[in-house]
Amino acid sequence: MDDSLLLEALDVAQACADIARETVLPYFRTSIRADAKSDDSPVTIADKAAEKAMRAILEKRLPHHAILGEEAGMSGTQGDWLWVLDPIDGTRAFLTGRPTFGTLISLFHKGKPVLGLIDQPVTRERWTGIKGHPSTYTSELMPGVIGTRSGLTLSEAELSCTSPEIMTPAHTPRFAALQKQTRRTSWGGDCYAYGLLALGQIDIIAECTMNPWDWGALVPVIEGAGGSITDWHGAPLSLDSDGTVLACGDGNLLAEVVRHLS
Amino acid sequence: MDDSLLLEALDVAQACADIARETVLPYFRTSIRADAKSDDSPVTIADKAAEKAMRAILEKRLPHHAILGEEAGMSGTQGDWLWVLDPIDGTRAFLTGRPTFGTLISLFHKGKPVLGLIDQPVTRERWTGIKGHPSTYTSELMPGVIGTRSGLTLSEAELSCTSPEIMTPAHTPRFAALQKQTRRTSWGGDCYAYGLLALGQIDIIAECTMNPWDWGALVPVIEGAGGSITDWHGAPLSLDSDGTVLACGDGNLLAEVVRHLS
Repeated sequence: MDDSLLLEALDVAQACADIARETVLPYFRTSIRADAKSDDSPVTIADKAAEKAMRAILEKRLPHHAILGEEAGMSGTQGDWLWVLDPIDGTRAFLTGRPTFGTLISLFHKGKPVLGLIDQPVTRERWTGIKGHPSTYTSELMPGVIGTRSGLTLSEAELSCTSPEIMTPAHTPRFAALQKQTRRTSWGGDCYAYGLLALGQIDIIAECTMNPWDWGALVPVIEGAGGSITDWHGAPLSLDSDGTVLACGDGNLLAEVVRHLS
Repeated sequence: MDDSLLLEALDVAQACADIARETVLPYFRTSIRADAKSDDSPVTIADKAAEKAMRAILEKRLPHHAILGEEAGMSGTQGDWLWVLDPIDGTRAFLTGRPTFGTLISLFHKGKPVLGLIDQPVTRERWTGIKGHPSTYTSELMPGVIGTRSGLTLSEAELSCTSPEIMTPAHTPRFAALQKQTRRTSWGGDCYAYGLLALGQIDIIAECTMNPWDWGALVPVIEGAGGSITDWHGAPLSLDSDGTVLACGDGNLLAEVVRHLS
């Protein structure tokens, strides 16, 4: 795989994120009742419209690449390249007016994520990662410098998770065991929390019941910011992973964290 | 109590929020280790500096008013008027780089909050409320229209809470009972979530172990946006409340919510 291919793909991903941002923003904080009818809730409309707009760009510029979207499923040729899209990661955050949801765009090559982009439309924050390169962070509005935090002990680490409700009964006690070893737990955040981990603000995130469109974009961003991202066993994430995701700002903590999660 | 007094006080509160914003922002997302030494963590430095700056304004402009601050405690004459300040509500949010902490400024008259201001320095969002007047919301960067949402049933309502860890063992099952009746729970947010409730984005917030500086500013904002805010028994909040706080966008839901929380 040559870098120029990935740089071209990154340019396409940026164009997708731009159109998603534009599509999603008008639906944010509309005072329409959340989703009494889930088929026409603001978040569903925004989600579908943004995915459609991104697919149109991908199909035009990279017609030989397949696409897997959270909304419209799989399309295109089953070759080496697969785009995996989640137009609005963090439905609850979006629906409650929190500027901590995000658009996730990733490119898999032979089943492994090689490019990732996280975009927060409201705060105009964007993280990008390409395998083998340092990640980037840009925002016109928010402070932040890319790079995970290292050198902390587990007892000094900031742990984060979107919600206790994403845990299965089997995972809850394992997460609680990890919680006891860390400094503090903060809740909420979805993909945005992984962006904060890439900025050295959060040290550990442990979540489960995650789909490839939830984690695909996170892998290159976190790794290119100096962190590690695996499943709860410490194994690389893949399309047949078990849905657990563990991100550590400092990979030196990984073995210890995995032990507490077991 | 005459309105011109409150309008003058609001002007002073705005000046306090301006100086707090300016003081706090440089510490946000600094990559300093969170607070290995809690005495000189970025959040503690920012907290103390912002409270000092706000106190200086209050002491100059309203020298006969007492001040209770989360950081420096009580000062001034014990008369009818008491300012209650929390420079950074949402320590965890601040420390993890989330733009969902806030500065809380409130004025109590004879033990009851009559003026409240919530400020989010990063997104430049500000909510104000004065007893008997409609609340206001301003932001240069974020969409939002003041006014709570009404007309939903409890099963359609969005419930929010900062963290499961703020619950005592006695409160956890009561909160869980309420959760079962609502549409969905989202986590995180501190005072910012109450701002979102005042924008009609969240319907119910139930929290406990709250101090007057945590809820004083919320009362006039929520009430002036059309909502209700009480303790978990449905009684008005006062300086000797039990630390439980319950905000409902639609006061018609209050009795039902109180029943589930009992």
